[in-house]
Amino acid sequence: MAALFRGSRNFLKRWNKNVDSALVSTRSMASKTQVGFVGLGNMGNPMAKNLLKHGYPIIATDVFPESCKELQELGAQILDSPADVADKADRIITMLPSSPNVIDVYTGPNGILKKVKKGSLLIDSSTIDPSVSKEMAAAAEKMGAVFMDAPVSGGVGAASSGKLTFMVGGAEEEFTAAKELLSCMGANVVYCGQVGTGQSAKICNNMLLAIGMIGTAETMNLGIRLGLDPKLLAKILNMSSGRCWSSDTYNPVPGVMEGVPSGNNYQGGFGTTLMAKDLGLAQNTATNTKTPIPLGSLAHQIYRMMCARGYAGKDFSSVFQFLREEEGQKGVNTPTD
Amino acid sequence: MAALFRGSRNFLKRWNKNVDSALVSTRSMASKTQVGFVGLGNMGNPMAKNLLKHGYPIIATDVFPESCKELQELGAQILDSPADVADKADRIITMLPSSPNVIDVYTGPNGILKKVKKGSLLIDSSTIDPSVSKEMAAAAEKMGAVFMDAPVSGGVGAASSGKLTFMVGGAEEEFTAAKELLSCMGANVVYCGQVGTGQSAKICNNMLLAIGMIGTAETMNLGIRLGLDPKLLAKILNMSSGRCWSSDTYNPVPGVMEGVPSGNNYQGGFGTTLMAKDLGLAQNTATNTKTPIPLGSLAHQIYRMMCARGYAGKDFSSVFQFLREEEGQKGVNTPTD
Amino acid sequence: MAALFRGSRNFLKRWNKNVDSALVSTRSMASKTQVGFVGLGNMGNPMAKNLLKHGYPIIATDVFPESCKELQELGAQILDSPADVADKADRIITMLPSSPNVIDVYTGPNGILKKVKKGSLLIDSSTIDPSVSKEMAAAAEKMGAVFMDAPVSGGVGAASSGKLTFMVGGAEEEFTAAKELLSCMGANVVYCGQVGTGQSAKICNNMLLAIGMIGTAETMNLGIRLGLDPKLLAKILNMSSGRCWSSDTYNPVPGVMEGVPSGNNYQGGFGTTLMAKDLGLAQNTATNTKTPIPLGSLAHQIYRMMCARGYAGKDFSSVFQFLREEEGQKGVNTPTD
Amino acid sequence: MAALFRGSRNFLKRWNKNVDSALVSTRSMASKTQVGFVGLGNMGNPMAKNLLKHGYPIIATDVFPESCKELQELGAQILDSPADVADKADRIITMLPSSPNVIDVYTGPNGILKKVKKGSLLIDSSTIDPSVSKEMAAAAEKMGAVFMDAPVSGGVGAASSGKLTFMVGGAEEEFTAAKELLSCMGANVVYCGQVGTGQSAKICNNMLLAIGMIGTAETMNLGIRLGLDPKLLAKILNMSSGRCWSSDTYNPVPGVMEGVPSGNNYQGGFGTTLMAKDLGLAQNTATNTKTPIPLGSLAHQIYRMMCARGYAGKDFSSVFQFLREEEGQKGVNTPTD
Repeated sequence: MAALFRGSRNFLKRWNKNVDSALVSTRSMASKTQVGFVGLGNMGNPMAKNLLKHGYPIIATDVFPESCKELQELGAQILDSPADVADKADRIITMLPSSPNVIDVYTGPNGILKKVKKGSLLIDSSTIDPSVSKEMAAAAEKMGAVFMDAPVSGGVGAASSGKLTFMVGGAEEEFTAAKELLSCMGANVVYCGQVGTGQSAKICNNMLLAIGMIGTAETMNLGIRLGLDPKLLAKILNMSSGRCWSSDTYNPVPGVMEGVPSGNNYQGGFGTTLMAKDLGLAQNTATNTKTPIPLGSLAHQIYRMMCARGYAGKDFSSVFQFLREEEGQKGVNTPTD
Repeated sequence: MAALFRGSRNFLKRWNKNVDSALVSTRSMASKTQVGFVGLGNMGNPMAKNLLKHGYPIIATDVFPESCKELQELGAQILDSPADVADKADRIITMLPSSPNVIDVYTGPNGILKKVKKGSLLIDSSTIDPSVSKEMAAAAEKMGAVFMDAPVSGGVGAASSGKLTFMVGGAEEEFTAAKELLSCMGANVVYCGQVGTGQSAKICNNMLLAIGMIGTAETMNLGIRLGLDPKLLAKILNMSSGRCWSSDTYNPVPGVMEGVPSGNNYQGGFGTTLMAKDLGLAQNTATNTKTPIPLGSLAHQIYRMMCARGYAGKDFSSVFQFLREEEGQKGVNTPTD
Repeated sequence: MAALFRGSRNFLKRWNKNVDSALVSTRSMASKTQVGFVGLGNMGNPMAKNLLKHGYPIIATDVFPESCKELQELGAQILDSPADVADKADRIITMLPSSPNVIDVYTGPNGILKKVKKGSLLIDSSTIDPSVSKEMAAAAEKMGAVFMDAPVSGGVGAASSGKLTFMVGGAEEEFTAAKELLSCMGANVVYCGQVGTGQSAKICNNMLLAIGMIGTAETMNLGIRLGLDPKLLAKILNMSSGRCWSSDTYNPVPGVMEGVPSGNNYQGGFGTTLMAKDLGLAQNTATNTKTPIPLGSLAHQIYRMMCARGYAGKDFSSVFQFLREEEGQKGVNTPTD
Repeated sequence: MAALFRGSRNFLKRWNKNVDSALVSTRSMASKTQVGFVGLGNMGNPMAKNLLKHGYPIIATDVFPESCKELQELGAQILDSPADVADKADRIITMLPSSPNVIDVYTGPNGILKKVKKGSLLIDSSTIDPSVSKEMAAAAEKMGAVFMDAPVSGGVGAASSGKLTFMVGGAEEEFTAAKELLSCMGANVVYCGQVGTGQSAKICNNMLLAIGMIGTAETMNLGIRLGLDPKLLAKILNMSSGRCWSSDTYNPVPGVMEGVPSGNNYQGGFGTTLMAKDLGLAQNTATNTKTPIPLGSLAHQIYRMMCARGYAGKDFSSVFQFLREEEGQKGVNTPTD
């Protein structure tokens, strides 16, 4: 009986695969045919360029026409709306700021789903609420298209050098097709599971990142107050169990490391306001799933307070500065002769 | 003028060194002469054994006579009190549970300082409040002895295998002498600065460790609730910016890693009650120095709540279990066929 | 110019009022005509009974037919669906557990808006996300109906005795009509502003309530540990600046007050799981409006942790018990002879 | 057997009382004989004046001679040190900023205990660590004197008008004598229990006060963001379960109440730095007694962060301003025409 059922299930799986294959068969198989790209901001622009470099013709659009100029000069075709892009390309990548933008670009009056071709592969690299990814996937499925979420880790630098990490959620049998495109833009392309799990992985990573960063800032600040040299303290932490990415790769204390925002007055990097946004997503998913996240929640609140106190545009490692005493402590007191 | 002053300072330094040398000259110079050891608990016992293995005769004491038996059988001389140990040995190591014990062992009626020889080197490896270390150093100095704080990182296993990390605070010119002994018991011996900075480094590390552990537990729990496979999530975190010691070396989720307490019902390891104690020390130093430590403070409270709810004796990674839903979630739901 | 503009605006206001009046004129004006009621749970049932007592014929429905029996015996007419209720009554009150239920009851396939009469007054007393209230109001407006949110403060007891407090959001010119019905069920009916502000006021109150309750529990626990008699401590707080509703009206420490859940093993009252839900709503609105709520957020997490540790069904004042040491402290140590 | 034991205990009690009476008998019984006063700061000065008004000759001292001038002009005798005061007066009140000052004034080289008379009554109204109060009491007892802690609630205004609340810890049989003096300076004099419980009550109250204040600030800010009028929201909270001293007596939102610091740019009142100090005391006692105080701890951290960000000198209700968005929100947006 169980065997029969398993058999049936396998049959269903095969049947579904046939359906999927049927859908996919309508998609352009020659790999270097055109790829649609919606959202040419700080991240989308270098990502699209990397696709161009790998020989993919690009059909793109953005709400801000000026964002399209550079790509147009490099040979991309610029259209007026996501719907127009969907009308021409059956593989589309979207890179947008937040959930409402994604909803609009997919399901709005000029959205992708208005003119999407059957069997199209739609990959969203925005960082949004996983429940929105699921909604988009369901809406795409109704139109005979496949939607995958593939948010990225790594900033503008990694986008330019094609070293992003993609965390991909969606039907496993579509992962190979997605990976073909994503590997032009990233060094790691990780399959995470069903639709939304790419977002979930991204949100989880950034929550732990925020906790580690604030924790590192507090710890370095406390150690300095207790008379420890910041470089020495960082060295000790990094050879001990306190070690984390924020202590050994992106230390928030000016002077401890080279080439990180803390050495450049917290300019560049990953803005506090963006971290606050990602922590808001983590908070929403935690609230919806009734999961306690005490430190994640407090990290969210601290980045929110920082935004209220003028740190919105600084790199998120500026929490070290936020926690320091204001007066008479302009910089870290490193030992001098 | 500045040059003159600098010159004077250097002169003073040299002068002080001479004084120090004078003190030190009274200390037994032959390196394999006897070493005193006070506190033969879970940590002290294997540490003293490693000194024995390296050829140092040991003169030891402990408030619990039975703790001394094993070492006595191995050839150590057991005396009645810290004062008696100080009467015979001019290099003494102490390894005690908390600040009040240290105060008693050094300054109590039968304490080390009652009979300490001039020029003795006193090394305290307990984890205590740095301000107590400073007090002990001042009291020792009055008796013509040198006190250094040298708390350890690494548990009973590292103590047995001689792989501890020592964080050492005290007069720099005594560090070489201290290192000779400590390197018999540890793989790393790090000089941190003036007296108390060893404690400060230890406390800082453990605070960041606690934050990273709770953060990892929250993140893994949230990811699992969102449908991610725990092993996959750990892998993603560990190749991304969420990476930390608790995620890649001591993962709190049962089944993700081998050979860690989470795989053994959180037995062994580093107890929640000990972590709560160290976080209390971090909190005290932060309060005294008026340093904000929002996440460190909340981590302290969470471990305190865990102690109140029956987790005192479990490894500190059991915070994962504490945060999980009680009913119907006995273990992590790993995908099965 | 400004005067002209103001005049124009006033004209528009008058015009709008005329439109509103036109809508309202289609609503049954005789005040004791039938009232619809959807949701006969612990709260809805006694609320509907109070309307009956005041002479309003009731037309009701609930997803659980058995919930309707008592009201039916008292003379209420029971129908199959919210749509059916809307077909017969042009004043409807809804009292439902959460946002999804409200969305379904209003906009679902058998929802109120399927058959709502033009000019109907729809009052939702559920505690839900204010943004859902706004969506429902917009959907109702499209059908020519008026939607108001009117969540309540006060539990089952206040619902039975008609002593609820209603916080009402919606068009001000409809408030009088709403108040006529609501004052049959409550002692206070407060107009809060535009649609959603009733929910906002409710959520704000409950967030501050949760903070005050946990704060009171921590404070009482700390004081008892420091040797203070709990009754004396409560008395001191209540005559000082620590005073709050949780300390003077609903003290969480067993034995301090009569007639509160702390005196009855935390049974009855307002469940931890309900408080966690309301704090989730507060968190969502704060995240959406980018408002920092550090203590509100931590309160949310604490109630969420309590749910995970078996406190879901207890009154929310059981946080005192949650924070107490488990062993050897079964009750509060009140001084004995 | 139990009766016999109880009898014995009662006998011992009586015997102890006789001893106490013997001590007390050496103290000046005529109530309007001179009273010593150490610490003539913002609080001590008006307190001493009230004793003068009630006819008590004052013998006073302060480390800052200029602080003594006003009292000297009113007839007080000014001496050089606490020891000198103790040499002349057998009832002494101390009002000092923090624990180290108290330790110095009592046990320092020119401290009270150097010349204290047997049977003297020493009342400390400073807010300090209860464990320091216990130490001072033990030291006083050795000299044959009685020490009581009697910290105050109420600020400079209450000190001037003689409306302070005193929370008194110490031997119950001395309470009447203490009350005689304290009631000249305060409206309420509450006996709390053994030595240190006065401090404990004070610390507990201020911890709950801080939690209530931050909670009120968060709640008001959230409500305003959600479109509620601040006065209306305060009114709703104050008639509901969110009510607390900070919402109904000392509302932190400018414009909601008259005569509170929020209406005067947060000048005057109770400084953030003082609140941070009291929360530090609460944190210390909680850490020492292993009591979880999650909200109290976070409140401490928030006030500490505020000190780091320039709020040290503002009233503690300025947390509302700290949490508000910086730009474009200079004041609360109250509805205008």
